[in-house]
Amino acid sequence: MEEKILGDIITKIREKQPIVFHITNMVTINDCANITLALGASPLMSFCEEELEDILSFSSALILNIGTMDKDMRKMVVKAGEIANKLGKPVILDPVGAGASKARMDLVGKLIKNVKFAVIKGNMAEIKSIAGIRNKNNRGVDSVEELEDADEIALDLANKLETVIALTGKQDIVTDGKRISRISNGTPILGKVTGTGCMTASLIGSACGVEKDYFIGATVGVSIMGISGEIAQSKLKEGQGSSTLRIGIIDSVYNMTSEIFKTKAKIELNKAN
Amino acid sequence: MEEKILGDIITKIREKQPIVFHITNMVTINDCANITLALGASPLMSFCEEELEDILSFSSALILNIGTMDKDMRKMVVKAGEIANKLGKPVILDPVGAGASKARMDLVGKLIKNVKFAVIKGNMAEIKSIAGIRNKNNRGVDSVEELEDADEIALDLANKLETVIALTGKQDIVTDGKRISRISNGTPILGKVTGTGCMTASLIGSACGVEKDYFIGATVGVSIMGISGEIAQSKLKEGQGSSTLRIGIIDSVYNMTSEIFKTKAKIELNKAN
Amino acid sequence: MEEKILGDIITKIREKQPIVFHITNMVTINDCANITLALGASPLMSFCEEELEDILSFSSALILNIGTMDKDMRKMVVKAGEIANKLGKPVILDPVGAGASKARMDLVGKLIKNVKFAVIKGNMAEIKSIAGIRNKNNRGVDSVEELEDADEIALDLANKLETVIALTGKQDIVTDGKRISRISNGTPILGKVTGTGCMTASLIGSACGVEKDYFIGATVGVSIMGISGEIAQSKLKEGQGSSTLRIGIIDSVYNMTSEIFKTKAKIELNKAN
Repeated sequence: MEEKILGDIITKIREKQPIVFHITNMVTINDCANITLALGASPLMSFCEEELEDILSFSSALILNIGTMDKDMRKMVVKAGEIANKLGKPVILDPVGAGASKARMDLVGKLIKNVKFAVIKGNMAEIKSIAGIRNKNNRGVDSVEELEDADEIALDLANKLETVIALTGKQDIVTDGKRISRISNGTPILGKVTGTGCMTASLIGSACGVEKDYFIGATVGVSIMGISGEIAQSKLKEGQGSSTLRIGIIDSVYNMTSEIFKTKAKIELNKAN
Repeated sequence: MEEKILGDIITKIREKQPIVFHITNMVTINDCANITLALGASPLMSFCEEELEDILSFSSALILNIGTMDKDMRKMVVKAGEIANKLGKPVILDPVGAGASKARMDLVGKLIKNVKFAVIKGNMAEIKSIAGIRNKNNRGVDSVEELEDADEIALDLANKLETVIALTGKQDIVTDGKRISRISNGTPILGKVTGTGCMTASLIGSACGVEKDYFIGATVGVSIMGISGEIAQSKLKEGQGSSTLRIGIIDSVYNMTSEIFKTKAKIELNKAN
Repeated sequence: MEEKILGDIITKIREKQPIVFHITNMVTINDCANITLALGASPLMSFCEEELEDILSFSSALILNIGTMDKDMRKMVVKAGEIANKLGKPVILDPVGAGASKARMDLVGKLIKNVKFAVIKGNMAEIKSIAGIRNKNNRGVDSVEELEDADEIALDLANKLETVIALTGKQDIVTDGKRISRISNGTPILGKVTGTGCMTASLIGSACGVEKDYFIGATVGVSIMGISGEIAQSKLKEGQGSSTLRIGIIDSVYNMTSEIFKTKAKIELNKAN
């Protein structure tokens, strides 16, 4: 069973404690650090261009999240991606709000042109923007879901960019263009907590820090978030809400084991066509 | 009854999900995003000057919070305010620590000169600074309360700047110079959680994103924070404290309904004079 | 008994509410603000070079944390330290990740050359880097503990730099070169919460804001974190984890009294040698 192999990655993360270097946004940076630690990996955040090479030399993965996109950060991300490529470290792109502005599209375009990504994770609006498909209802960082053509969009983009696409939504899709996994974990209330997307990227980065098959790494990362969201929601009491859920998500990741993963994961793994 | 009309704004926010663009400080940015989501609005944070016009074009309100005031941010806020004015979007100013330094007074002065604000929200020290009244006991972002002349100061400033002043304190005062609401919700322990002021601005921004009468929007925003603080405090157990309260505040906003609002709000709404 | 005198500092903080100015990293800035408030002090965070002199004039302590180290911040910290020295305010250095990159060592070197520190707080990897001892297993911000020579390293550095060294680890050591305290509070799970080190610096800064003997201030600050971690851990329920612990730490600081401190503190205070 796939869940067995996938779940073992959690054990591997806790053993190897990969360092996951984040260049990320100001809104959810603390949550990203905490969820990375909770999974057993070791987060490292910096905005210092001069130390990129030093830091990347001992990191196991790099996450680039363009959320708040200030000037210095826009300069740094391309350079960081290039160095990580040179050093053979997996780079995960979280193109937050891609399509919400010309500046975001320009930066994403420059990143894709210059950096080879292990995984690109986004919601439908973000992935469509990267694929060059115009959104009718762009609402910034929100996603309007149109599930019908999700498979096709994800597969095409994965093949075109030779990367893994992790397309999050009601049902999550992860594909490397050859294989496709559909993940049915998760709960709508996750959308009421800021940073669940960013934290998913941290989980993917942690997994890809110990697993060279990034399609598998991304599938595990996305699933852990969905499962943790379900567990956290099931524990909410009367009068509790999105903020207790946020605490519960990180607690659930902290307590996640291969066994819990294998029991709870709802992953359908197939060859693409 | 006023509470009925005011409470209906909560329903409207949950229906319309207005996008509230924040240019805000690094300390409480995550709390601001989470409380905005909890109320049913959609937060968007960016520090990218080049995308101001794009982002503001689909935003329903803009919040400018000068808390951590780095160099790039100081340049951006004036420009963002001017664009929002041009597009007819309400701009809420949270002049954190105004009066604590010459640099803060200069920035606030420049903002007030160039931007027309829908609402200016601050504590007594901040509002006095803007009104040009010297504080004897300036302690940075803290406020020393002197309630006697609160009404007069708020009314005068509202009339002078043709804006809504939301003056937070033991009793909150909101006025547009013609009407004045006194809000008696809240609890002193709110002062032991960083960012309750910033989060109040997020609530005001969310309300003003669906309600053109900004006096009403500000009154609702301020009241929701007070009510949520009371609910959160009433649930604190032995050994719990300010951090559990912070979680409880956002949970209470998440569970806030027009009905809860109408039952709990202690708002006295009058004509000025 | 020492614990009695030490514990009284908590009462003094709650009475005097010292303003603790932080120039700190983006990851844990909110936690630092909240724990400072929870202890009864008043946090102030800014990244505005132009207001350093104004803010420091009414602050009781300055904390410099180089965690995320962006360009503007690197310029600001040296200047801030020099102004604080001139004004006679204690400066606490948290050299996060010192040794992880040449850029970090350069900044720490420049800081130590130009600023007189009241306290330098770090884990073994960080303190060793400052002492010029190479780490074999550098893992960025993590620390590989080698307890044998901890005393000697801390004492030597304290004497060389004429400062207080607070060396955190399984057992924490605080020394001014003449006296040494060994603190056996704390719990390993603290390592799974990001920012417990940064928050410890905030507690030290709050204590040094009311206590001129910085060796005592640092001992109290370090102990409060250990005790709060123990209390928070003892309250964790089945299924809870690192995120609930983080809330519990700040809650415990909020509820900390001289009495709780005196009962729980495990401090051994000796003359050096």
